[in-house]
Amino acid sequence: MLNEHLRMGMVGGGQGAFIGDVHRLAARLDGKISLVSGVFSRDPENSRATGQMLGLSPSRCYATYEDMMHGEAALPADERMNFVSIVTPNHMHLPVAKAALEAGFHVLSDKPATLDLAEARALRDLVRQTGLTYGLTHTYLGYPLVETARSIIAEGGIGKVRKVFVEYIQGWLSQPVDNKQADWRTDPARSGPSGCMGDIGTHAHNLAEFVTGNVMTHVAADLSVFVDGRRLDDDGSALFRMQGGVKGVLSASQICVGKENSLSIRVYGETGGLEWDQEEPNTLIRTYLDRPTEILRAGQGYLPASAQTGFRTPPGHPEGYIEAFANVYLDFARALNEGRASTTGVEAAVRGMAFVEALVESSKNNAAWTEIGS
Amino acid sequence: MLNEHLRMGMVGGGQGAFIGDVHRLAARLDGKISLVSGVFSRDPENSRATGQMLGLSPSRCYATYEDMMHGEAALPADERMNFVSIVTPNHMHLPVAKAALEAGFHVLSDKPATLDLAEARALRDLVRQTGLTYGLTHTYLGYPLVETARSIIAEGGIGKVRKVFVEYIQGWLSQPVDNKQADWRTDPARSGPSGCMGDIGTHAHNLAEFVTGNVMTHVAADLSVFVDGRRLDDDGSALFRMQGGVKGVLSASQICVGKENSLSIRVYGETGGLEWDQEEPNTLIRTYLDRPTEILRAGQGYLPASAQTGFRTPPGHPEGYIEAFANVYLDFARALNEGRASTTGVEAAVRGMAFVEALVESSKNNAAWTEIGS
Amino acid sequence: MLNEHLRMGMVGGGQGAFIGDVHRLAARLDGKISLVSGVFSRDPENSRATGQMLGLSPSRCYATYEDMMHGEAALPADERMNFVSIVTPNHMHLPVAKAALEAGFHVLSDKPATLDLAEARALRDLVRQTGLTYGLTHTYLGYPLVETARSIIAEGGIGKVRKVFVEYIQGWLSQPVDNKQADWRTDPARSGPSGCMGDIGTHAHNLAEFVTGNVMTHVAADLSVFVDGRRLDDDGSALFRMQGGVKGVLSASQICVGKENSLSIRVYGETGGLEWDQEEPNTLIRTYLDRPTEILRAGQGYLPASAQTGFRTPPGHPEGYIEAFANVYLDFARALNEGRASTTGVEAAVRGMAFVEALVESSKNNAAWTEIGS
Amino acid sequence: MLNEHLRMGMVGGGQGAFIGDVHRLAARLDGKISLVSGVFSRDPENSRATGQMLGLSPSRCYATYEDMMHGEAALPADERMNFVSIVTPNHMHLPVAKAALEAGFHVLSDKPATLDLAEARALRDLVRQTGLTYGLTHTYLGYPLVETARSIIAEGGIGKVRKVFVEYIQGWLSQPVDNKQADWRTDPARSGPSGCMGDIGTHAHNLAEFVTGNVMTHVAADLSVFVDGRRLDDDGSALFRMQGGVKGVLSASQICVGKENSLSIRVYGETGGLEWDQEEPNTLIRTYLDRPTEILRAGQGYLPASAQTGFRTPPGHPEGYIEAFANVYLDFARALNEGRASTTGVEAAVRGMAFVEALVESSKNNAAWTEIGS
Repeated sequence: MLNEHLRMGMVGGGQGAFIGDVHRLAARLDGKISLVSGVFSRDPENSRATGQMLGLSPSRCYATYEDMMHGEAALPADERMNFVSIVTPNHMHLPVAKAALEAGFHVLSDKPATLDLAEARALRDLVRQTGLTYGLTHTYLGYPLVETARSIIAEGGIGKVRKVFVEYIQGWLSQPVDNKQADWRTDPARSGPSGCMGDIGTHAHNLAEFVTGNVMTHVAADLSVFVDGRRLDDDGSALFRMQGGVKGVLSASQICVGKENSLSIRVYGETGGLEWDQEEPNTLIRTYLDRPTEILRAGQGYLPASAQTGFRTPPGHPEGYIEAFANVYLDFARALNEGRASTTGVEAAVRGMAFVEALVESSKNNAAWTEIGS
Repeated sequence: MLNEHLRMGMVGGGQGAFIGDVHRLAARLDGKISLVSGVFSRDPENSRATGQMLGLSPSRCYATYEDMMHGEAALPADERMNFVSIVTPNHMHLPVAKAALEAGFHVLSDKPATLDLAEARALRDLVRQTGLTYGLTHTYLGYPLVETARSIIAEGGIGKVRKVFVEYIQGWLSQPVDNKQADWRTDPARSGPSGCMGDIGTHAHNLAEFVTGNVMTHVAADLSVFVDGRRLDDDGSALFRMQGGVKGVLSASQICVGKENSLSIRVYGETGGLEWDQEEPNTLIRTYLDRPTEILRAGQGYLPASAQTGFRTPPGHPEGYIEAFANVYLDFARALNEGRASTTGVEAAVRGMAFVEALVESSKNNAAWTEIGS
Repeated sequence: MLNEHLRMGMVGGGQGAFIGDVHRLAARLDGKISLVSGVFSRDPENSRATGQMLGLSPSRCYATYEDMMHGEAALPADERMNFVSIVTPNHMHLPVAKAALEAGFHVLSDKPATLDLAEARALRDLVRQTGLTYGLTHTYLGYPLVETARSIIAEGGIGKVRKVFVEYIQGWLSQPVDNKQADWRTDPARSGPSGCMGDIGTHAHNLAEFVTGNVMTHVAADLSVFVDGRRLDDDGSALFRMQGGVKGVLSASQICVGKENSLSIRVYGETGGLEWDQEEPNTLIRTYLDRPTEILRAGQGYLPASAQTGFRTPPGHPEGYIEAFANVYLDFARALNEGRASTTGVEAAVRGMAFVEALVESSKNNAAWTEIGS
Repeated sequence: MLNEHLRMGMVGGGQGAFIGDVHRLAARLDGKISLVSGVFSRDPENSRATGQMLGLSPSRCYATYEDMMHGEAALPADERMNFVSIVTPNHMHLPVAKAALEAGFHVLSDKPATLDLAEARALRDLVRQTGLTYGLTHTYLGYPLVETARSIIAEGGIGKVRKVFVEYIQGWLSQPVDNKQADWRTDPARSGPSGCMGDIGTHAHNLAEFVTGNVMTHVAADLSVFVDGRRLDDDGSALFRMQGGVKGVLSASQICVGKENSLSIRVYGETGGLEWDQEEPNTLIRTYLDRPTEILRAGQGYLPASAQTGFRTPPGHPEGYIEAFANVYLDFARALNEGRASTTGVEAAVRGMAFVEALVESSKNNAAWTEIGS
């Protein structure tokens, strides 16, 4: 049985990687999870230095993730890591997850879960087979006002959902970019069949499904490469349909000059609407048929009970991305402690990859409506 | 030759019609145009009462638009109206425009220009044949910051345009609505082949073409009817392509609960971006690759010369929809005085109708990419 | 008895003057008021040219305001002007108003009403004596959401008022400015004992009294001259007290670089608050003790009845400064037609001047609390 | 010599106290500081339970702060705490700081530093005498865009500063409140001579001095008690003057219904301005004489070098209050490692208390200009 305080091993996240640091900040924030072991880089020097910087015992800084699984499994139950956090480039997500699950460790993986749909299905089989908990860090679900939106819709607060606008636009790939971050994200071998859509479009897809509680079923898409020489889409838009007659538009782009990390969702139902923007995450706009629009704010007592655990400070003390990420870690930790599935698990992983493949297919096929597999 | 001060006749806009009042406010604001004649309603009583309220001479309140064309043509040149303003429901736009042009009067028409593309082409032929000036009141082009955006892009200020997001969403048809405004807008016989797209989607289309200076060539669309029993689309979204490799997304909806009149456009080029929202029309956001985002404001000396004539007050004194509409009237008046075409003329009219027909076709045809005719 | 349609004479507002044009746009917008006579400048050439441009009959373009009063008084009742609009520099407000009232004409004056408090009291006496209607164009009261705020507070919607923040800041006098507008505004002989406070601080004072329904009684002030060589304050702030235990802060400045015309008010009572900003005039923010903050919007049916007449277009069609100004003209016209006082009349004129004098006195007197006379 | 990784003891912050948790989150976030000892409450049960929850060794959970100082001092140098974090109610700040300094421990204290000015001066003497580092957690200085503002002004980016508006308003004390937080904050014995001004006005004062680089010298103030029965001010406003001819207005209030934690500052100089709002902390508005206003954003490369260390994530990943607080802890940790003073130290502590006393005096003395002592 797991203790409340959890021990984490990490694969990936050596010096120079952005997302590894963020995972560690998030895991550390609430004092419930300790990093105890790691393989931070393929470069042993980088890995060792990172481990030292993080105060890890040298004996638990492993050379390969296979070593780590064996090494940790050999430790006493009350010492060995409880779960593995995977923060490598996309193509390594599945191999590491597989090794971890096979060695009996729960997995919390950066997204997308795998390189492609076939891999995601294989992962799903393995998770089901092992009975272990698999979580995917769809960070944006960790914001309390995203949970608020979900809860309001689930309770019928805007009536039957009709139309969804979801968008994730950035500008950092507007020009040819030559750095580690951009490098693997635009390489099909390490990033999968899509660049922008795999990287950020999947967040938009996941957010739309989470907030509405509906599964996206079809897309009609147009993916683009705007920067010469780039091998994967750096922009794309899709019309989509969800179960229950919901229609929508999803855009993701990394060539919108000047945009930072603009993920937003707007949902309109028969009797109301909700609007949320990740860059102002502590605010949720709620619209009505015949009443003034409302501004719902993080930390307030009028938020639904399920959103009350998502903040650490009173209203007006902004919490942000790291806190949302920490909420995803807390949710995963609670899932382990309670023996339940993580909020975003392997089913969402499969749907995300199926979504990407459907986009690519529709875009090649004259924008034809294309079913999202499962 | 026309005088600077112009005399206007009006068809449509009797009591109970919203848009007629707005046309009159706009025409009156700058003191350059006088209303001298009219047929305000099919109902003679309403028409006479409206004319009286407006201080028209009873002799120039006509029973039918045909009477008006004859009656005015019979007046001395320095008395008769210079142009006709058409503010009827859509299905009457062409018949009245035709009668006016054939009687030798310039025409300024509410949009859409006609019921369908065939009519629009017929109108184009007639305008070319008569050599008269035809203008379409695409109000939103009258905002000085829309002109600013157009000018910045034309001057290369954001580099080659890549991606456009344009959207026009409202909420007033979220529920079954039973009034004069909603009535004809949802009746195919009076509104044409599309409801929402014909009514407001055409504004979005027009705005995208005006701001970018590019012609939209293809759409992949999904039109919807969300309210039971409605006969025309009340919502729709389309992927689109423009000349020059530009891609975009256009949405129009009248079922977004709580949205008022939210027309917005965002354009991203190789080196910058521009964002404008009709509900905050005095602000234009300009983004850069490596510099802070800027807030451009109406009335400021740093705006391009072509935008300097569009405001009447110093910065910080908000001007709005009526002033933008008045700018459209002023532009038309200047066009007449200068013997040039109106900024939005019969070519835009044809493209608007072709756009609507392409949307309808694509939506019926599995969202297939569909060429916009001309 | 006055007709609904009114005839206006104007004093001031020749070519090169900003505010004259605005008054004319405002008076013209709704088609209820016609300009029939004027003295637009001390320079007869400018005056004649302005009159001609405006289409006035040459016989009603007068050389002096005294001539105008006599000339108009001599015309038949159904031809002569109904009222005089005064748009001169401040020092001429009283002489012209006096002449008009003595000749039997109602007066609508730009603000401040007079050069100083003594003049304002003299004006009050004259208005009372003649029984004529005197109005002051405190433009900002013309916004429907200002009326909404007033109405909500009057109905007890925020409980007993406690604290008011009111502020009017601009940047256009941040540097030495050499033009006609700046010239008289910084000249004590033409502007009165205060520059910035007389010019725009009085708007803030008026707005605070109108919205709260309370009279301001005391100030503790600090006026400043920041630009070398300027003879009148270009900035100032004051603590203030109102009847009923209300406390507040008022700031006015013309040296806040980059600010355009930023007039805002925030009022907090025992159970709620209201916030309004002139640069986004179609929105009113309403706060509550334990409920989400609301965004009230112009044109909506949920606004109080008294605000429903203040807009001409549906929600989301922004109306601005000219429309607010036109509302002030309409209010004055209705006052004449109904034989009642204008919303902002001679009492407000006296209070405004008393406010300025109290500020000047307190500022010279170690910020001591100083009573505002009456 | 101190190691990079620091060991912290804490006094205060038992279960039910808000600010203790925040200090711990902030100290923990970056993995550079460990909590090793504590006295969390006067109630030994609460203290022990808090220590256990935090994973402290029972031997280092002390009964009194005196015990803690002795106990820790007796430990080996590489085990004992490096500094004490004080998070008690105000009246205990000095006694604990004194004990810590006398025992040879550096101190990081929640603000205000002491109950009154006399105490603050005594503290200053002691700090000077011991040569130890004393820091005050003026959290808001930890935001990178506050540092950006300071840096721009220090570099002359807005010219000589003229006018400052600084404001800190909340609504949580609008009604009589009966909880632990409100209790001591409104009790003179535990909170000092001022309630609202001592609690949050001091943040506004500190922010104004930090951003402008000027010392505030005089105030003319009006403090209020709006809620019946409250013994300390719950609202206040002051005119102020700073060295160098700067003038300003400072307001602090806890009765502004619906406001959460609205701390904002606006500074205008001869050639530009800066505006920042704690509730949108990742944005800084910069105004110019003749150029568009700019939006500066956290994480961007164009920010000054001194602000580049203040964020952990790329632009568009909002960081908030906890991260700002963590920056204050990091600054203190760096100060210890570098043997320099903390950014906000004992001089700021004295000025803060002198500011409060001057406000109280001026408010009692007819708003007379009152010098702030030192």
